[in-house]
Formats: sequence, structure tokens, C-alpha cells
Amino acid sequence: MKIIAVDPFYLKMPQITDTADGTQDTLVVRIQTDEGITGWGECDASPLVSLAAYCCPMSHGNIINIRESLIGETFDSVDDVIRLHNKALRNGLDIQQIHHAYSGADIALWDIVGQKLGEPIYRLLEPQSQSHSKLPYASVLFGDTPEETYQIATRLRDQGYRAAKFGWGPMGKFSEENDVALVRAAREGMGEDAQIMIDAGVVWGDDYETAYARTKQFAQFSPTWLEEPLAPDAIEAYMELSKRNPPVPIAAGEGSGTYRMAEDLILHGGIQFVQIDVGRIGGITAAFRVRQLAEQHGIQYVNHTFKSHLILAASLHVFATNESFDLLEYPAEGSELSQRLTVERLEVGSDGKVGLTGKPGLGVHVDTDAMGAYLAPVQIQVGNEIVFKPVEL
Amino acid sequence: MKIIAVDPFYLKMPQITDTADGTQDTLVVRIQTDEGITGWGECDASPLVSLAAYCCPMSHGNIINIRESLIGETFDSVDDVIRLHNKALRNGLDIQQIHHAYSGADIALWDIVGQKLGEPIYRLLEPQSQSHSKLPYASVLFGDTPEETYQIATRLRDQGYRAAKFGWGPMGKFSEENDVALVRAAREGMGEDAQIMIDAGVVWGDDYETAYARTKQFAQFSPTWLEEPLAPDAIEAYMELSKRNPPVPIAAGEGSGTYRMAEDLILHGGIQFVQIDVGRIGGITAAFRVRQLAEQHGIQYVNHTFKSHLILAASLHVFATNESFDLLEYPAEGSELSQRLTVERLEVGSDGKVGLTGKPGLGVHVDTDAMGAYLAPVQIQVGNEIVFKPVEL
Repeated sequence: MKIIAVDPFYLKMPQITDTADGTQDTLVVRIQTDEGITGWGECDASPLVSLAAYCCPMSHGNIINIRESLIGETFDSVDDVIRLHNKALRNGLDIQQIHHAYSGADIALWDIVGQKLGEPIYRLLEPQSQSHSKLPYASVLFGDTPEETYQIATRLRDQGYRAAKFGWGPMGKFSEENDVALVRAAREGMGEDAQIMIDAGVVWGDDYETAYARTKQFAQFSPTWLEEPLAPDAIEAYMELSKRNPPVPIAAGEGSGTYRMAEDLILHGGIQFVQIDVGRIGGITAAFRVRQLAEQHGIQYVNHTFKSHLILAASLHVFATNESFDLLEYPAEGSELSQRLTVERLEVGSDGKVGLTGKPGLGVHVDTDAMGAYLAPVQIQVGNEIVFKPVEL
Repeated sequence: MKIIAVDPFYLKMPQITDTADGTQDTLVVRIQTDEGITGWGECDASPLVSLAAYCCPMSHGNIINIRESLIGETFDSVDDVIRLHNKALRNGLDIQQIHHAYSGADIALWDIVGQKLGEPIYRLLEPQSQSHSKLPYASVLFGDTPEETYQIATRLRDQGYRAAKFGWGPMGKFSEENDVALVRAAREGMGEDAQIMIDAGVVWGDDYETAYARTKQFAQFSPTWLEEPLAPDAIEAYMELSKRNPPVPIAAGEGSGTYRMAEDLILHGGIQFVQIDVGRIGGITAAFRVRQLAEQHGIQYVNHTFKSHLILAASLHVFATNESFDLLEYPAEGSELSQRLTVERLEVGSDGKVGLTGKPGLGVHVDTDAMGAYLAPVQIQVGNEIVFKPVEL
């Protein structure tokens, strides 16, 4: 089949705030083929900057936009999806945003080839494989105080969550005693049989000594991991932390905008959990390579997801077939936009786990009627040329 | 003083081709202050995608555009320039393009603080220092054939160049014999006493064995370096190449869009020359950190520059004070746009070297009259809001 249209849509809530809530807007990508099959993808990135990578005028042979790379291409197989991934990234070698932007197109192409071949994506990634449901962990912010954190944790426990991640907020901002009290409150609120994770929100920068000291204090509460104690680029500091054998496993990787960034963390950062956002790293194609690298190095792959169930499904296909990768970051709350984007939702089952729908492709479908309410049509003019204009949903 | 305006201008030639000529368009950034001092910077990146990072609507606390980060800020010192660099990159943590885009703003801020303090930028980076002129190497594309390459090389020699880099085009696309013939032609055309450099233009991907084989063939022509034999992300392949002790030094780094990418190459890629584009890595602030890292590791820092003399001056300030870093990539040809952008040009002196003008700030000034002919006014509308519109030069 032939690609006849590649259309990014900018969706947003009426009001956007500066809180750490990634569901307030999104860029959704639709790809249409001459056989009538349509695929959808989603990016976790600035919608406008990513959209520009779909339509920017050519600068030279290393700055060619994504539409130019894809429209008119023939594709029918998994090999073609990978070929087009390589082509688009090569054509966009000098567009820094290319991986963030291409993520949506890559997910849409996997969706199409899955529909064409009548297979869910995970089975295209690993033929004859089975998918495994995952234990969803609720991802929430710490309360402002230990008491508030305790209240949040008990609420999550009452909602049935057996795992929860607490992050950002006051963590690392005040005393060691306060940090410890926050983690104690999370543990006591969730109960002894739950999994708790701590997300330090890059608060200690490159100060690995403080990060190490905290792991020694936090170990008494048996958290599954301490996430992003250090800045995303502080790989050398991660290695120093790792050399001290911290008694709590270290997790990081959501900022990986390229395969190499994840590889760098795994090879030189000494982490135990690698957290990949399929909407940032270049889509399913790049994320699956990181999963394979994690398997080779005996560390655990986990998704990073803070958007809709469209990207949640894409994230899950990447590692659904590895039973030992058993945790799923699960966007439990989030904006109305993110809740309404898909017709199907990946709900928590009676066994407390979350699985795929089993349908071909992504297995979830975009609700184009619902999308209309959030659509922010974009028009871009460069000189005398309109390089991007709104298209119909 | 206070920042009152931050304006990126998209400039382009009437016709753009897919050749590896980065001078066909550009993004120039003007910053104005309430004290009447104006600074200029330039990005080596997709103009439209970078411009979008100046005006994209906020998505959350990690996607805030560059104008929002800078306008209204007070600054008077070098510390302020660094503070604003950190602020803009932190606000744009989830905008992958942020480093490419911020490069122009960072250069403009250094230009302003230099003018304010009456000092050239290199002396702000290293107080009481002296700048040293560099040996310029002409940077040209290989001819399509060895014969054409020989003609180009003799022409450069006749123009007085004592060093020249030949790159891209047919290199690596055909046989080993052809590759060798191209390098031989470059050497014979430039003469035995000249320095020649070979730029393979990432043609061998992650195939370090072929890259190593070429260094053994090319060594007979004593090139100063073999540049980018491998893909920018193929750091593990660079390390494998390095372990084989190739008989030609390896250069890389122009693709470094972050400080960490350059650090990764230096620590884990085993290169001998690190080539930094001040218009991609986040400006003078980030490039200077790489220069310091190169000094610590005993490798040579070289600029990567394929734009106008505005960015050439910015590049040179970064390492002008280190006499042993003695080579300067010099855009000898390039579009009319790139030639006409600045009033002053950093011409080759009678000693065959290129130095700074000694004037405060960048020491070169933009020719706004000349710019007008190449201006492509940009207008961007998102929903009902015009987020970017043309401003007067």
C-alpha cells in the first residue's frame, strides 16, 4: 500500500497550567493509505515544535521534514516500518526534534501494518508470542506534608491499587528527616504488601552523595525503586551512585529522546530500571530496541506514560511479551482530553492487572468525534508559502 | 538591563537544494534591551522547527518557550547569561529542539554582555586572557569524481589555503578504490605541505570495520583526521574503532545537540578531535564547557561551522584563548546569504591565519540592510491565537 496523507493534529484543553501534568495537550498523528487503512499515533512533546518537524521547508539533505519522507512511500511489512523509521531519521539528521516528532508517525505505521496483517503489534515485534498483563502502578505527586502523603496513599489503597509511585513536590526540597517522613507515610498508607516507588524528580542534580545517603535511609521502607534522583544528563554521576551499591534500585530514562540516550544510561549509568516514553524516543521501533538492550543487560524495562490510552497501548505492545517486565506506569487520572481520546480504554481487570485488547494494530481507536472539541487548527506561513494548514478530521 | 524583545528571523536563498550545504538558509536571533544594546546570534538548525521553540504554547512546566523564559529578565553579567541558559533549558526540558534553538539566543546574550562591559566575549570567558589566531581550513565538498576533487584542491591551494577539509559527496558511496582515489586527489591538489582532512559524512553508519579499513588506506596521504566515519549515535562503534588504534586520528561531534552528547563521545567514543557547533549545542555557554572537558582529556577542540561569519565569530570566541587548539573550520564558500550577513568578515590575514576583530561582544555586526533580501516572514496560528508574526528588522 501507499502512504497518501500524514496529518498531525494539535489538541489541547482550554486552560493550560505549569503543573507537571503532561495530559493538558497532545499531538496526535494520522496516517492514511490508498487501501483505506488509517493508523494513529501520539507524541509526548511540544505539539507545535513537533508539528513543525512535519512541515519545515528543506534546509539541505539533512533537514527534510517527516511528510516529505513518508508521503508516496510504499509499505506492507514490518521491514518497511523499520526502513521508513531509518529514512525519516536520516532525512532529519539535523532536526533535533525529529525523534520526539517521529514517535507519532512510527506508532501510526505500526498500527497500519498490524491492521493490514490482522495481528496486534506485539505479535509483529515477536512472532507467535503471547502478551502478558502487567501490574499497573498509580503515578501521583507527594502531598505537601507526610500527613497529606499518607492520606493520598490510603486513598489509592482503597481504590484497589497494589502499587503506587510518589514523586516530586517536597521531596528533596527540605531536610533528610522530611524526605524520610514522606516515604514512611507512603509506605504506611499503602500497607506492607503493596509496592511503592519514589520519584525524586531530578532534585539532586549531579549530587550523587546525597542521592546515595537517601537510598540508605529509604531502604527500611523497601521501595521498588528510587527514580531520577539525578539530572537526565548526569550520567557520570549516576555511575558514581551505582558504584556505591545503593540498597534501593535506581530507575531513570524518561528523558531519553534518542536510543543512544537510553543506551548511555544502561551502559554508563548503572541503573536497574529503564523507563522509556514511546512518544519521545522515536516510537515503538526505537523503544523496542531499548527493551532488547534491557534484556541483554538483565535490567527491567518499564514504560513512561503520562498521556492517553492511545500511547498507553503503544507503550504496552513494546514489552507485553516479556512476562518478567511486570510493571506498567498507568495514567490513572489526567485531563478530560486524555480520558476521551480513545474509544477503548485499557481498564484494570478483576485480577488487578492491565492488558491489551487483542485487536489488530494498536487495538485501541481514536474517537474522532471527541477529538473535535479539543482541536486547535494550525496554520504556518513561511514567506509566500503556506507550509501547513488545517485538514479535516 | 532588561530584555525587551527576542526575535528570530528566518532567512533563505530563493532556491534550496538537497546538497550538504548548510548555508542555504539560517535562523538569526536578535535580542533587544531597554538600554538600547542589541545582540545577535545564529542557529545551525531547521529555521522553522527552532523558531517554533521560541513561540510554542506552554504544555506544562517543562515545555515553556524561549521568549517566555527571557523577556522581562534583568541581566548585566556573565553569571546572568549562564543563569538564563540554565533557566531556558530547564523550562524547555521536554522540548527536544531546545538546545538547537537556544543557541542563537545564548550567542546574542553574550554579544550584549560583551558590549555592555566593553570586552570581547573570549575575555569574559577567561578574564585577562589573550586570543590566538587560528589556521583556517577551507571546508568543501568532494567533487563528484577524483578529477573534480583535484581541481577543487588546486583552486584552494592557489587561493592560499594551507589546510582544507573534503567531505560528503561520493565518499563511501562506491568502491574502496574510489574512496582512496578521492583522498589521493585531495592530497595531490593541495600539495605535500598542506593539511588535509577527510569528512566521511556518517556514511558507514555503525560499520566500524569498514571505517577502520579506510583509515589504513587513507594513512598513506597523512590526513589530519578522518571525520564522522560513523553515525552520531554510534558511540559504541566509535569505541570499537578506537580500540583498533586506527592510523588516522578520528574527529566527530558536530551532531552534539547537548553537552552530554559531546561528553559521551569524549568519554566513551575514544575520539581525538571534538568538533562542536556553537549553533547547535546550546550556544557559547555549552560549547565552552566542552572546550574545558577537551582540555581535561587532552584532546583537541575544533569548531564546526558551516554558516555565516556571525556564527564563525561566536565559534572562535569559545576557544580563541587556547593556543594549542590551532585549527579553525572556515566557511570559505557558501551562499550569498551567508557571505553578506555580516558587515565585518573574519578574513585570512597575511600570516595565513584568522583572528577575532577585538571589538566588544562578538566583534562582528549583522548587516540588516543585506538581510532584508533573504527574509522569509513567518506567521504561525494555533487555534484562534497568532503565536508568531513577522516583526520589523
